[in-house]
Amino acid sequence: MIEKSNKNIVVIGGGTGIFSVLTGLKKYFKNITAIITMADDGGSSGILREDFGVLPPGDVRRALIALSNTDNKLLNELFNYRFNEGRGLKGHSFGNLILLALERITKDFEKAIEAAGKILNIQGKIIPVTLDNIKLYAELENGEIIKGERNIDIPKHLPYIPIKKVWLEPKCKINPRARKAILEADYIIIGPGDLYSSIIPNILVKGAKEAIKRSKAKVIYIVNIMTKFGETNKFKASDFFFTLEKYLGKKVVDYLIVNKEKPSEKRLKPYKKENADFVIPDIEKIPKYVKIISGDLIRKKGLLRHDPEKIAKLIYNLVETRGGGVVKRTRL
Amino acid sequence: MIEKSNKNIVVIGGGTGIFSVLTGLKKYFKNITAIITMADDGGSSGILREDFGVLPPGDVRRALIALSNTDNKLLNELFNYRFNEGRGLKGHSFGNLILLALERITKDFEKAIEAAGKILNIQGKIIPVTLDNIKLYAELENGEIIKGERNIDIPKHLPYIPIKKVWLEPKCKINPRARKAILEADYIIIGPGDLYSSIIPNILVKGAKEAIKRSKAKVIYIVNIMTKFGETNKFKASDFFFTLEKYLGKKVVDYLIVNKEKPSEKRLKPYKKENADFVIPDIEKIPKYVKIISGDLIRKKGLLRHDPEKIAKLIYNLVETRGGGVVKRTRL
Repeated sequence: MIEKSNKNIVVIGGGTGIFSVLTGLKKYFKNITAIITMADDGGSSGILREDFGVLPPGDVRRALIALSNTDNKLLNELFNYRFNEGRGLKGHSFGNLILLALERITKDFEKAIEAAGKILNIQGKIIPVTLDNIKLYAELENGEIIKGERNIDIPKHLPYIPIKKVWLEPKCKINPRARKAILEADYIIIGPGDLYSSIIPNILVKGAKEAIKRSKAKVIYIVNIMTKFGETNKFKASDFFFTLEKYLGKKVVDYLIVNKEKPSEKRLKPYKKENADFVIPDIEKIPKYVKIISGDLIRKKGLLRHDPEKIAKLIYNLVETRGGGVVKRTRL
Repeated sequence: MIEKSNKNIVVIGGGTGIFSVLTGLKKYFKNITAIITMADDGGSSGILREDFGVLPPGDVRRALIALSNTDNKLLNELFNYRFNEGRGLKGHSFGNLILLALERITKDFEKAIEAAGKILNIQGKIIPVTLDNIKLYAELENGEIIKGERNIDIPKHLPYIPIKKVWLEPKCKINPRARKAILEADYIIIGPGDLYSSIIPNILVKGAKEAIKRSKAKVIYIVNIMTKFGETNKFKASDFFFTLEKYLGKKVVDYLIVNKEKPSEKRLKPYKKENADFVIPDIEKIPKYVKIISGDLIRKKGLLRHDPEKIAKLIYNLVETRGGGVVKRTRL
């Protein structure tokens, strides 16, 4: 049994991306704070936003399950369960409904998260990046404006036109608790996750970029394993990095974690249908001021996601040895 | 702190009736089994029965909350919460949805109840009286047939015509676990609750009456405080007793618990709108083979329901002193 690190780790993201990271980190770190995007307006979360005016619960739910330490397996399954039948219930994730009901009872989304966290006995904290009700917008290279995270995440604008820029409306400010966590962090981990729809919406919140810059924390960006159709077509590792840097500012990222191992054709095959490609690790294009950690980071089976254990160990080694050894050893 | 009795107590009922009893009993008894009617087809439970073919969760939910011992107050509130907005969610009790989701996950209604009981750390067991999908029917004195518990509970047949008889369709048999609990009981408590829509549907299940008769348990019937429009208009205590006896058989009930204290006009006033009257304690009409326990059993505030503490103490005294003292002292 490893002794858990008591360094303050902040993970910023949303969607399914940071799930693997949080799942792994909870075994290695005592103080984890997940800062979660509030731009989601698709699926179950989207319906609940419209009907109840609640902040989107979906990404919070995923973080809750990732950080859950309950020994009641059914409780996790309950949070994960999705109705596939029934008037009005079909498509709803049950964890979202739990968060919604708790929000109605406590009249406070953050108290609802806290209560759900208590039920699941989570390791760490989950904080919405903003408490304002926002919408994500994108402008494509041809000038077309796309409204809503859902329409960026599942693009209707075909053939593919690259995204020129994204922004939030109306203006919103960072949740003070998110700001505090960032300022007190020893390490800030950004991603992995859909770049424009899950990662950058956190940075677009007023005060987020400033807090990250002001924080003494080392900033780690975990580059995706696969591209995402409609968002990051044909993106290489350097495209992910430079796009993030455009929004975050220069020389903010200290470490880049890049998967260098291309998966087998068999595992890549299902992704072809979704026009998703392997992210080529063109680390030679990454500026010298960024330290690169690369290796085979994909889990052995299933979807092409980061292996929770590998990622967590790698970050643990980085944090506990101040990066030196690991970085030299793993740079290509 | 009182030492809890380890006698086996079985409570049979449904609706909101047995809630007070269970709430009180959990402080005085270690081994409580609540046997719950499955005839409910109204409201949230009715919709879920129709859409999911699930057994009705509503009465189980109430018993869960009554027996809950969790120190997480919000968990109880979560089970109690009812959506009053939202497409498809409006009107649903959240506890019902939890039971539904757990039933979908475990594919077993009893396992779902067990899992929910574990979440709420309940004191005791909750057992559906039958696992068959049944419907309650009533024939009125004029020959009219009413289909469904909901239509008996909230009568559309106006002006009031008394119920001649009730029955279940299709034929159904007792849940073996309910049978076992009844056979192993030291005391069986029936009611309080809506006589035709919450109490008798338990006895109508094939094997229930037989199990109660075969059991060596003493049988206690708690008579309602108020009549229920459409079911028990103008019923006195003896009408409740004789109607139950008609379905349960002669000389099965050993003890009758009857409230003798008429509430103030102020507290009775809201009931006038619902055509509900105080149940007159005409205990002189009760056969001599039934021991009567009567007293002021109404809670001090709020709706005219049994006081959980008074009822539980009374039953505790009855169980632990074998009835003698209490009965003599409290008989009118």
